[in-house]
Amino acid sequence: MTINAAQYLQEKAEIINRALDEYLGGRESLLRPVMEYSVLSEGKRFRPVLVLATLESLGRQPESALPAACAIEILHCFSLIHDDLPCMDDDDYRRGRLSTHRKFGEAEALLAGDALVIQAFEVISSPFLPDWATPEKKIRVIYELSSAAGVQGMTGGQYLEIAHKDAEIDEALLAEVHRLKTGAFIRCALRVGGILGDASRDDLDALTSYGESIGLLFQIVDDILDAEKKDEKISFSSFYGIGEARNKASEAAARAEEALSRFSGKKELFRQIVGFLLERKR
Amino acid sequence: MTINAAQYLQEKAEIINRALDEYLGGRESLLRPVMEYSVLSEGKRFRPVLVLATLESLGRQPESALPAACAIEILHCFSLIHDDLPCMDDDDYRRGRLSTHRKFGEAEALLAGDALVIQAFEVISSPFLPDWATPEKKIRVIYELSSAAGVQGMTGGQYLEIAHKDAEIDEALLAEVHRLKTGAFIRCALRVGGILGDASRDDLDALTSYGESIGLLFQIVDDILDAEKKDEKISFSSFYGIGEARNKASEAAARAEEALSRFSGKKELFRQIVGFLLERKR
Repeated sequence: MTINAAQYLQEKAEIINRALDEYLGGRESLLRPVMEYSVLSEGKRFRPVLVLATLESLGRQPESALPAACAIEILHCFSLIHDDLPCMDDDDYRRGRLSTHRKFGEAEALLAGDALVIQAFEVISSPFLPDWATPEKKIRVIYELSSAAGVQGMTGGQYLEIAHKDAEIDEALLAEVHRLKTGAFIRCALRVGGILGDASRDDLDALTSYGESIGLLFQIVDDILDAEKKDEKISFSSFYGIGEARNKASEAAARAEEALSRFSGKKELFRQIVGFLLERKR
Repeated sequence: MTINAAQYLQEKAEIINRALDEYLGGRESLLRPVMEYSVLSEGKRFRPVLVLATLESLGRQPESALPAACAIEILHCFSLIHDDLPCMDDDDYRRGRLSTHRKFGEAEALLAGDALVIQAFEVISSPFLPDWATPEKKIRVIYELSSAAGVQGMTGGQYLEIAHKDAEIDEALLAEVHRLKTGAFIRCALRVGGILGDASRDDLDALTSYGESIGLLFQIVDDILDAEKKDEKISFSSFYGIGEARNKASEAAARAEEALSRFSGKKELFRQIVGFLLERKR
């Protein structure tokens, strides 16, 4: 059966959207609308869909992973809110709408981000959800999320970027900022899927390599598509130029294929995702 | 044996300080010094010491609870950093030193707070610490931490406070802001200690009530001690006046005593803590 990655991503994104509404929490809080504005807006839901795709490729029911998948997306949204704040990138717009602090105010955006990062861990640990994983697996998932999001991951990457905003960029710094800021979370999605899907150690290694490669591929293509906007930032397209950045994207795609050759599960969906990422236009 | 609460708090605070240095993470990150500045500064360590005191009162070794105790303190420090930011309370000083954003910059303080909130969950879930609790208990601890810190707890309380900064304060709002912003975390310390110390259901209920009462006591006395500074904020001393606030503190102490009468463990240390909180001068 041929799988169309674009269609798969879109179908699963709708499932993620419904689950996010359920898992967002804070229904009695005045802060909920601010959280909703960021999380329930349009988004590709690429990271959480990767969790579901991993379960599927391991021959498991993907739905059991929805709390973990949504926690990853909630953490992603938290990082976007704080990244847009005036003391960071000072972005007025996000996904075609006013950024959260421009819509609600700075303190409101700060606290909505704080509430979201904490909510991600509450979703995983909540005793009020139907049983979806053993405590052992939940703890492993929480470790993956926190190490990918924290000082050795996404947050550390954001710091590295602002710490070097006036510095000369070299290849190593570009790779490290990307690895921490974007790569860690896409890698995390694959590993969380692998843990929940009982991947063998070898398969978890292959999934990790695949995740690292498509994370890089995702970011390079993002930079190419945003080339006009990203001239001043640490970006693959501004560092290498568009032509060479495309070569780097193809290399990352090849490494993803190589990782799949070591994966014992179903490969077709993951192959389609590589092609989709390489060809995508937005 | 008579226990001196002040001495107990001080001795255990030193143990907490050493453990915090170990659990803080990010040793290879440029962000670590910013995290250290906030977390390893002077602090009463009241919340983590309460976790240890609970284990002790249940007849358990308190040291096994150090990761959870430190996670609570790390979350407390995260909230202080973000609370001091210009868009929130805009405080230039904290614990007699420059606040984190005044010392390092706003983006640095924002990201250090973000790294800390995530680090708290990484400490609990880390596979690299010697075995200190079962996965079941760790998940319960993570749920207690996240629900006390998030939108239904501390972060929600901070939002409630800023949302009403120009509004008329009434008794219910004052109680709710306190319950969420300060109370939830002290209550959480007692519950985490109870969970790790295998408290019975009845004892966990008693510990919860005790925690709620000493949380209120702690905040009222804090407000009285800070009366001059807190005129403009939601504070027990400015709302009730000092004399009536003292009566409220005594009532909270009496409720804490009442909760202890339902606790089957050792009560002496907890009794001393009530007296200490009632009498403290800073």
